Amino acid sequence: MRVRILGIGMGPRHLTQEVAGALRGCDYAVAARKRDDDGLLALRRAVCDAHGVPLVAVPDPERDRDDPADYPAAVGSWHEARVAAYERVLGERGGTAAFLVWGDPSLYDSTLRIVARIAERGVVPVDYDVLPGVAAPQLLAARHRIVLHEVGRPVHVTPARRLREAVDAGQDNIVVMLGGAPAFEGLEQWSVWWGANLGTDTEALVAGRVGDVLPAIAAARARARERAGWVMDTALLRRTT
Amino acid sequence: MRVRILGIGMGPRHLTQEVAGALRGCDYAVAARKRDDDGLLALRRAVCDAHGVPLVAVPDPERDRDDPADYPAAVGSWHEARVAAYERVLGERGGTAAFLVWGDPSLYDSTLRIVARIAERGVVPVDYDVLPGVAAPQLLAARHRIVLHEVGRPVHVTPARRLREAVDAGQDNIVVMLGGAPAFEGLEQWSVWWGANLGTDTEALVAGRVGDVLPAIAAARARARERAGWVMDTALLRRTT
Ligand SMILES: C[S@@+](CC[C@H](N)C(=O)[O-])C[C@H]1O[C@@H](n2cnc3c(N)ncnc32)[C@H](O)[C@@H]1O
Ligand SMILES: C[S@@+](CC[C@H](N)C(=O)[O-])C[C@H]1O[C@@H](n2cnc3c(N)ncnc32)[C@H](O)[C@@H]1O
Repeated sequence: MRVRILGIGMGPRHLTQEVAGALRGCDYAVAARKRDDDGLLALRRAVCDAHGVPLVAVPDPERDRDDPADYPAAVGSWHEARVAAYERVLGERGGTAAFLVWGDPSLYDSTLRIVARIAERGVVPVDYDVLPGVAAPQLLAARHRIVLHEVGRPVHVTPARRLREAVDAGQDNIVVMLGGAPAFEGLEQWSVWWGANLGTDTEALVAGRVGDVLPAIAAARARARERAGWVMDTALLRRTT
Repeated sequence: MRVRILGIGMGPRHLTQEVAGALRGCDYAVAARKRDDDGLLALRRAVCDAHGVPLVAVPDPERDRDDPADYPAAVGSWHEARVAAYERVLGERGGTAAFLVWGDPSLYDSTLRIVARIAERGVVPVDYDVLPGVAAPQLLAARHRIVLHEVGRPVHVTPARRLREAVDAGQDNIVVMLGGAPAFEGLEQWSVWWGANLGTDTEALVAGRVGDVLPAIAAARARARERAGWVMDTALLRRTT
């Protein structure tokens, strides 16, 4: 059978022509049903409805977040449980399945690992390909009408919990993803361009000197979460000289 | 008047629904005519034709590449010459203009700087917005069916001439853009996923251990250039442990 991993950007308007065409050619789409992001599942459902493809919601296995003694093993068995859940759906339905990935599959997304693992196990033989989509940092930059780096300079993309390392290593342009509440202490002099729930109707944007806008970011983040029921945010931090 | 900066990804199939809609609503599109990338101009023309919008090719001012004594000043005056060339076209035509940006406007592209500068000069009053597109690193990742980083790790995007700095700073996942011939000496043990002219009919892909595949990359790069008349390549380098 065939699996197509499709980047859908930040919602229906971001589907590329090739993703829209590929989706229409699929028999069904699968998406994780998580406890805490029904909003994103609804957006995926809207995408499927618009292209006449049924959506199969796969319940995400519960993850033990209580810091088990053997953390890597716990993550590993959770990953295997997810693999098994998707494998079961694919095995039962066959045909051509779409995995709808929020943003782009190449950034902080586990779909490729799951599908590669299913292919590797060989229980359900799958051929798969990947079509790209617009990622959160790009939409952030578009909304603020900025380039992610100064002329000829690098840009560093990092999960929030490694922000400190990047600052210490001398990075000047840092895109922060996977944040909880922003922890920008010590970076008061930096510039920040921040966005939450980009591309949705609860989108929020703040820009300025970190020291000046931190309260505005915290307030906007809380409001977005309240309105949408979930919040995801991305920030570009730039060192000022 | 209004300017819309539209990311078109790596060609017509990558236009998002919102970019396609925005383009259809524009009176015309402008694109640079450079000495050395007629291939890209032709791709932009194909995008415009498909959406019934006329394309105005703006000759790119000649850039003095002979390392003038005062390099920053030379780049600065070249930039101002470009600004003036676009400003002239916009002033003459008015209405709503699209700037078609290859890939995404947030990565190594000067369109935003040019349009911001036109707005700042105020000779031709412009309102502008930006719509994102698929960038080269994402298409590279899609073609190789990979994520750009290991689980929970950063990814560092850099112009080729700063690759050495990134390696020395301990980066593990490095996306290299704006390369000339690849200069991966000393990185023989790293893994590389490389692609040239991605999304076009002269696309070339190579992956493997740097030390093993460097000759294959050089050959594929030369072939792509010969077939297309131009070559642009992107690579992901990953440190192996
Ligand atoms: C699991 S990662 C998925 C990233 C996605 N694959 C992409 O290409 O953008 C989730 C993180 O992406 C960012 N993100 C995703 N959607 C976002 C949105 N609509 N607005 C702001 N940030 C978003 C946030 O940093 C969030 O913590
Ligand atoms: C001036 S930058 C523009 C980048 C573009 N804005 C983007 O979002 O990908 C040009 C560089 O992008 C990369 N690039 C652009 N198009 C490419 C393609 N079709 N295949 C491979 N690399 C490409 C190469 O590294 C090239 O040197």
